[in-house]
Amino acid sequence: MIDPQARTLPVEPIAGHRVCFRVAYVGSGFSGWQIQPAHRTVQGVLAKKLSFLLGREVSLVGAGRTDTGVHARGQVAHVTVASADEAARLERALPGMMPADIEVYDFRVVPPEFHARFSAIARRYSYRLLFRREIFQPNTWQIIRSIDRQAMDMAAAFLPGRHDCASFCKTSSLKENGNVCHIDLCAFEWSADSAIFHVRANRFLHHMVRIMVGTLVEVGRGQRPAKEIPDILEALDRSRAGCMAPAEGLFLEEVYYPEGEGS
Amino acid sequence: MIDPQARTLPVEPIAGHRVCFRVAYVGSGFSGWQIQPAHRTVQGVLAKKLSFLLGREVSLVGAGRTDTGVHARGQVAHVTVASADEAARLERALPGMMPADIEVYDFRVVPPEFHARFSAIARRYSYRLLFRREIFQPNTWQIIRSIDRQAMDMAAAFLPGRHDCASFCKTSSLKENGNVCHIDLCAFEWSADSAIFHVRANRFLHHMVRIMVGTLVEVGRGQRPAKEIPDILEALDRSRAGCMAPAEGLFLEEVYYPEGEGS
Repeated sequence: MIDPQARTLPVEPIAGHRVCFRVAYVGSGFSGWQIQPAHRTVQGVLAKKLSFLLGREVSLVGAGRTDTGVHARGQVAHVTVASADEAARLERALPGMMPADIEVYDFRVVPPEFHARFSAIARRYSYRLLFRREIFQPNTWQIIRSIDRQAMDMAAAFLPGRHDCASFCKTSSLKENGNVCHIDLCAFEWSADSAIFHVRANRFLHHMVRIMVGTLVEVGRGQRPAKEIPDILEALDRSRAGCMAPAEGLFLEEVYYPEGEGS
Repeated sequence: MIDPQARTLPVEPIAGHRVCFRVAYVGSGFSGWQIQPAHRTVQGVLAKKLSFLLGREVSLVGAGRTDTGVHARGQVAHVTVASADEAARLERALPGMMPADIEVYDFRVVPPEFHARFSAIARRYSYRLLFRREIFQPNTWQIIRSIDRQAMDMAAAFLPGRHDCASFCKTSSLKENGNVCHIDLCAFEWSADSAIFHVRANRFLHHMVRIMVGTLVEVGRGQRPAKEIPDILEALDRSRAGCMAPAEGLFLEEVYYPEGEGS
């Protein structure tokens, strides 16, 4: 943690002093994470507050570029500051400058080589399903038709492992150097009238979680059999997978770094 | 319940056919219940949909005019329709025409003398407090400072009974013919890090629940003693009570009618 007393000591500016922190946000009010002119984005709001606080242009790097409407509880961002004094100022002042739909927390001084995106070794998402209409729970995909939970569990069980996940990626976002992901958690947590889909992997392709959830819900609705999942994976063809689940149920929960880095 | 088969039968229009239904809404997107030009209001949205559905101007009456930002789970409204056919059409079509922040349900045909507002014999509100910051629970008053729950319980216990509640009413909204309310439920339901304040009365004055909650929270913070509540009631003076709690924690939960009317 940053020593708040540091501010009272004379500190030589050290170029490359790096601070990372976590960011939670309610996605519905943002055109995603990434800064865009004329749109309200999380990165845009944070960069503006940071610049105001430090009196100069500040750029910040996030671990993942969440899409429009997607929420985060544990996004991670880093900024480069000029001194321990500036680092302390961020931790002290930034949380109180946030709008009602962003929260920043867990400030840490990290080595200058730490990078919120490139140092990350895994990410975990959750996707919330609600099996009734409820206007006071907007951050869920509300599904009224009955679904077969057992079939969805069976289908989800095919996903963990190391696969080329091209079938679960927005076609225009496919990478030339490979689309292999190592998924080490992929399961539903069921409640009486809701479910949380948990998924963790070393990397995620564009739209990957939402296409997975959309496909698994189609299995639950009886529109395709659970045992089709391995064929879909093998096909490396987006058109073989199901629809994309809506953004409002998706949460970036946690970003993981090597022991001692970031968190 | 309305018989959906009724539509296929030839029905003579009966003037004064009346339908009532319940309305739930997320208050944050509305300038309150009551229709206003150039503002999005719940009554305004509903009247527009009803007019579209029935092909003519339709006015609807609500049980209570909730203020800007106040939510409802069990608001009650009535409309006068021309026929059983129109009543059936409302029940069948209106629910599917609602935006994401309004829900209509529990349609009933009621006698022509039923009036959503004047027939009501009691109303129940809840007010939600959360004792931490949580961006994903916007419909709560988030209080970070520690509070004395026992003192708040003691203070709330002075409120049930038949009182002139002028001290808990927006001054400009006081009625000349008396401000006596009969409160028969007024209590906190405590959880680990949250509380729900429940209050039921035959009538509520303007801002009454929010001024009560604001005053009780001041007791919880140690800013005034619990035993001051009877003096505040007796004073019939708004300036003696505490601040008004924010709108976002307040829910109109239920409206009560004599047995067999409305619900």
